[in-house]
Amino acid sequence: MKSAFCFLIAAKRCEIAGLQQLALTSALVNATGRFIHALQRERGLSNLYLASQGQHWADERLAQVACCDELQAEVRAAFDTLDTETPRAGNGARLFSRIAYVLQGLDALPLLRLRVQTQVWSAARATAGYIRLINGLLAVVFEAADSASDPDISRRLVALFNFIQGKEFAGQERATGSALFAAGCAQADGQQRLLHLIDSQERCLQVFADFASEPLREAWAAVQRHDTQASLERLRRILATSLPGGPLDTGLSQIWFDACTARMDTMKTVEDALAAELEALCHQRLAAATRDLADFQKWQRAESLGEDLPEHGDFFDEGQAAPAPPVNLGHPVQAYGPQVERSILELVHEQAQRLQQMGDELDMVRASLNERKIVERAKGLLMAHRQLSEHEAHKTLRQMAMNQNRRLVDVAQAVLAMAEILPPGLR
Amino acid sequence: MKSAFCFLIAAKRCEIAGLQQLALTSALVNATGRFIHALQRERGLSNLYLASQGQHWADERLAQVACCDELQAEVRAAFDTLDTETPRAGNGARLFSRIAYVLQGLDALPLLRLRVQTQVWSAARATAGYIRLINGLLAVVFEAADSASDPDISRRLVALFNFIQGKEFAGQERATGSALFAAGCAQADGQQRLLHLIDSQERCLQVFADFASEPLREAWAAVQRHDTQASLERLRRILATSLPGGPLDTGLSQIWFDACTARMDTMKTVEDALAAELEALCHQRLAAATRDLADFQKWQRAESLGEDLPEHGDFFDEGQAAPAPPVNLGHPVQAYGPQVERSILELVHEQAQRLQQMGDELDMVRASLNERKIVERAKGLLMAHRQLSEHEAHKTLRQMAMNQNRRLVDVAQAVLAMAEILPPGLR
Repeated sequence: MKSAFCFLIAAKRCEIAGLQQLALTSALVNATGRFIHALQRERGLSNLYLASQGQHWADERLAQVACCDELQAEVRAAFDTLDTETPRAGNGARLFSRIAYVLQGLDALPLLRLRVQTQVWSAARATAGYIRLINGLLAVVFEAADSASDPDISRRLVALFNFIQGKEFAGQERATGSALFAAGCAQADGQQRLLHLIDSQERCLQVFADFASEPLREAWAAVQRHDTQASLERLRRILATSLPGGPLDTGLSQIWFDACTARMDTMKTVEDALAAELEALCHQRLAAATRDLADFQKWQRAESLGEDLPEHGDFFDEGQAAPAPPVNLGHPVQAYGPQVERSILELVHEQAQRLQQMGDELDMVRASLNERKIVERAKGLLMAHRQLSEHEAHKTLRQMAMNQNRRLVDVAQAVLAMAEILPPGLR
Repeated sequence: MKSAFCFLIAAKRCEIAGLQQLALTSALVNATGRFIHALQRERGLSNLYLASQGQHWADERLAQVACCDELQAEVRAAFDTLDTETPRAGNGARLFSRIAYVLQGLDALPLLRLRVQTQVWSAARATAGYIRLINGLLAVVFEAADSASDPDISRRLVALFNFIQGKEFAGQERATGSALFAAGCAQADGQQRLLHLIDSQERCLQVFADFASEPLREAWAAVQRHDTQASLERLRRILATSLPGGPLDTGLSQIWFDACTARMDTMKTVEDALAAELEALCHQRLAAATRDLADFQKWQRAESLGEDLPEHGDFFDEGQAAPAPPVNLGHPVQAYGPQVERSILELVHEQAQRLQQMGDELDMVRASLNERKIVERAKGLLMAHRQLSEHEAHKTLRQMAMNQNRRLVDVAQAVLAMAEILPPGLR
């Protein structure tokens, strides 16, 4: 018959397995982030190349394609290190299925590039292709963010995912602005899209700010006070406030591209810092859990040898009902102090309570992720069935929430519930 | 380099692994449910035995102890079948840690029984002991309910967990009412507690009704229209409306115990039906996923042999953007029809979309579980810091929600957020 100790140790081993998986996933996220950044640049250069009818940017574009291929190889190598042989419960199914999707896109990438090279596709169509591939890569990162069972790690993954997503909107903003300046003429459609991209970007960066650690939140705030940001804001204003049909200075095209690129490169450094912090945290947690496991095993051996152990404590004694002092989640190592002083019952209590507390915190993190997802889904529904743009859909939801004095997520939930009772044909 | 197919198959294998783990967990939940039911009866009989100063119920109690020991052996056997050697990510850590806690309680159970046998402990204290052990067992069931990644299974697990939890409140109601009738005198404390238990019971049964399948919801509704329920309601009224300090007919003690027991036995049959439905669903999903896997593998072999396969489809072609028709989650088998007609890309799309849809539904299920947990946590906080009973804490939250015209969960979240900013000493 398995003892309480056996399960206590098994629980710790599961925790370690989860953390190891997470460390692996975080390496995958890093490689994917680097590749996304390079693809964003390839997209921008392809845009400029197509806008100039292939007169300019040809060399820069080809150099960037070569750079992307190197990073693509790294991403594929990271995919290959994932253990696809041992089936695992949890988010494995979703992660692997996202990867299968991305691999289809990577296999088709040479064809997309050929279409750009030979100018068969328009800038808009090529951009849409790159966006699709990048979205597939972002979905891989998202699955990782959804899998952590340590709330601190989960929080940082959420911050990282939203930052990367925000950077992608910045990349799309660069493409949209470039197209407007290159056309030399303000167009309502493009202007609308630009505003929407700025809006989406800011929402992502807000989530990042809500979930990131203090130092990284401050690092990002400091970067934003930089000169480049002011010059970008000036160009944004020109793009957004020019009368549709009116002229736009094509000479600003290059300045716009450079300003946006500078911003994205800065974002990449913050992204790298986020990823490094995440990796360090994973390893720190892993080291702590490994130490705990060694302690548990030492104690189990002592028990099996019949050595003198502290009393077991009384399970039904009301004194035991008092919750153990909250374990400092930041330093799980210290929390397990000298164990010889403590009863097994206290240990079990503490472990259960620590996991409970982590679970509670995780629920909170998940709840806010969930709310975001529900709002996005309701927006998607409105876009599909009322032919609204994403920006309009968001505005509609916000207006409904204000009118009804309800939270955005409640309104979104009501919209989704409504859709469920519609006959399939009308959905 | 691993292909998209390789990851598609790995994803399916993960799904299968998750379902297998779930089938195992559901067997564990069954055994635990049977043991809880028997322990509830042992608690009731221990109560009656202590209330009669050991004059009555001695034999019935001992017979029930023997019955509990048999079921305990089954639960321990179910614990032993869990694979504690291969560490798994996901909820393994929490599940195993809950089990470690329960094992401590089971090891201490003989001592609790001795205290009852020798009448060293009062009925109230013994009841509290049994409640603690049963709560530990319920926590094991809860971890199972929290682990499913198939929304239909998750919904049924939530229904089952809440039903079992509701039955436990019914068991505590039986004990509280028995104590009141045995004392022969209405006491405000006990009456308050009785009302609270009825209230908690009904909330659990409401969640059950919200998540259960139609047939089982109806089965439960049909059972409640039964005569026993009317007689129970009459006794509840007598208990609740007698003036504190006024007499209670001790002759009703036996009738009350029998009426409550009849109700709990009926609840057990519904619980069994819930568990059977859950097991059947697990096996059905498992069979479907296994068939899908076989199809995928057949196709992969065909591909590796260079056999004629339908076209891959164009990843970047906008026609592919149109979402595949929603897969009927109830019948995943049919959804994968004759695959020879379909491109790999469509297959990948479909698989991703199906998992996405499952994930979306799961979010909804989790969101409502989460809300419940947040409300419970806020109640716990109010109980601890304002010295309120659970019933008062719930009433306070409800009143706040009504006054502020907000949802219960929003008020609960506000209460928790408030606590976070208090200095540790005041929490």
